[in-house]
Amino acid sequence: MTDIMMIEAAAARLQGKARRTPMLSSPFLDDLAGRRVLVKAECLQHTGSFKFRGAWNAISALEPAGVIAFSSGNHAQGVALAARLRGIGAVIIMPADAPAIKIANTRDLGAEVVLYDRETEDRDALGARLAAERGLTLIKPFDMAEVIAGQGTCGLEIAEQAAEAGVSAADVLVCCGGGGLTSGVALALEARAPGLCVRPVEPEGFDDVTRSLATGKIQTNTRLSGSICDAIVTPRPGALTWPIIQRLCGPGAVVSEDQALKAMALAHDRLKIVLEPGGAVALAAALFLPGQGDAVIALATGGNVDRAMMARALAL
Amino acid sequence: MTDIMMIEAAAARLQGKARRTPMLSSPFLDDLAGRRVLVKAECLQHTGSFKFRGAWNAISALEPAGVIAFSSGNHAQGVALAARLRGIGAVIIMPADAPAIKIANTRDLGAEVVLYDRETEDRDALGARLAAERGLTLIKPFDMAEVIAGQGTCGLEIAEQAAEAGVSAADVLVCCGGGGLTSGVALALEARAPGLCVRPVEPEGFDDVTRSLATGKIQTNTRLSGSICDAIVTPRPGALTWPIIQRLCGPGAVVSEDQALKAMALAHDRLKIVLEPGGAVALAAALFLPGQGDAVIALATGGNVDRAMMARALAL
Repeated sequence: MTDIMMIEAAAARLQGKARRTPMLSSPFLDDLAGRRVLVKAECLQHTGSFKFRGAWNAISALEPAGVIAFSSGNHAQGVALAARLRGIGAVIIMPADAPAIKIANTRDLGAEVVLYDRETEDRDALGARLAAERGLTLIKPFDMAEVIAGQGTCGLEIAEQAAEAGVSAADVLVCCGGGGLTSGVALALEARAPGLCVRPVEPEGFDDVTRSLATGKIQTNTRLSGSICDAIVTPRPGALTWPIIQRLCGPGAVVSEDQALKAMALAHDRLKIVLEPGGAVALAAALFLPGQGDAVIALATGGNVDRAMMARALAL
Repeated sequence: MTDIMMIEAAAARLQGKARRTPMLSSPFLDDLAGRRVLVKAECLQHTGSFKFRGAWNAISALEPAGVIAFSSGNHAQGVALAARLRGIGAVIIMPADAPAIKIANTRDLGAEVVLYDRETEDRDALGARLAAERGLTLIKPFDMAEVIAGQGTCGLEIAEQAAEAGVSAADVLVCCGGGGLTSGVALALEARAPGLCVRPVEPEGFDDVTRSLATGKIQTNTRLSGSICDAIVTPRPGALTWPIIQRLCGPGAVVSEDQALKAMALAHDRLKIVLEPGGAVALAAALFLPGQGDAVIALATGGNVDRAMMARALAL
């Protein structure tokens, strides 16, 4: 089980490797929200999302001969770069119909991309065969103790940066898919800033964690595609992440796709950062949903958006 | 005259007030440029540009009862926020035909905006009268020792961040208008990182500093409008900034508007930051012009771009 000791060990491994991302703010956003809004700009992390933290920590801790991952998105890029920097090979299994730019980016980061046909091939069997044949270690996107610990290092930074900003009690809104970042940050804040309460934020129609928290047991999403917030669409909370989220996190929050796009545009205008829809839902909740207290912290978790989607947000 | 002692004093005044902006990079940009590209993301500074540094330092050092400035752009916002945080009044004189959003933003930051008619009114006379009547101190956009010292604090950070990145010899490309940032950074690097050589970068048609450096005496621009890089269009190098630039800076560089827009799009894709055209010319030079050495540092100086201009860059 991930704990604060593992997160501290991850922070030591990430020292000088991951960026300490800035905590941004704007008086315009404060006025809009009616309270101070602090934005942890994790879109400025290597590969454009927090995923590099967990990937680097898992690879550094486990010291595998090579790694394998299933992902067409942010996890793929985080694993590919971390493996390259550690000098080991990475195989990333992606659906053959993944966007060409994501395949190209992952290859450009040095990974071997293996494509499979969603209709006719069994992804897990393919991965298991490759892992066995080549002695590769699977790096899971969230349900893995070392990955959760790596994402938790973001929480250590939030604890310090909130204290520097004079904020000791606030909601910490986190864009939530499988819950790796949410649970890691919650563990870090439990130990280092107990007045900061993590609340998962999800897009409408993909609110499994919010419903799980409300009902006290794991709920699943009926759909797994069709959201512009694709980076945080997962079937259900993870087996490792859910108990942590249930124990430590406040109620979930849900925003519309339109609110996510508006938050992207405001982040562009006021913070000068680029967010993808799934990386903007926490900021959307901070800006557009009612909240309590005189400050709120929002994690801006990723910025891997294509130009057309950003143009769509800016045209709203 | 500004010197390293004044810059160090400015850094002490800015401690905890200005952001220490991150030094970003991307393996994709390294590949494109054929060498390491480090980007100092000063667009993430308060008010979206480096201008807050000089404004805060001048106001903190001079302790005026109130301030006045001429600007419709980044300097206006920097002065307005610095004055508000210092608890003094700010009058910003703007042309009546300035974009409504810039007027609104400056007012929202607490400044009193006084509009004048470019055709019929004498801006300087209006400013002098208001300053005399109300006892206001003029904060110049670049040709003022305390402003240069404030901008120079960015150079102290570059010296530290380049050392952390293992870069001790490189060109430092700086988007250059009147030369406040260029001269301040050059002074800081002369003292703290003498292997780093500042080179001013300007847009085509507004390359007064580049031509001044090439000829050894001050040259002027024939036009003062019509550039999308409006933030760095000035008639000529400043009386205080020019001797510093002449003594310390390497040859200037000139990029096209199209290159500036392409750099904005690449900054969006690869660094997840928002740049305005004038804030992107140094990055454009790093990416698209030939250079020497195995690393280059580019200052991304401002991100106050409207949504339509960003959409234009993303559509290239």
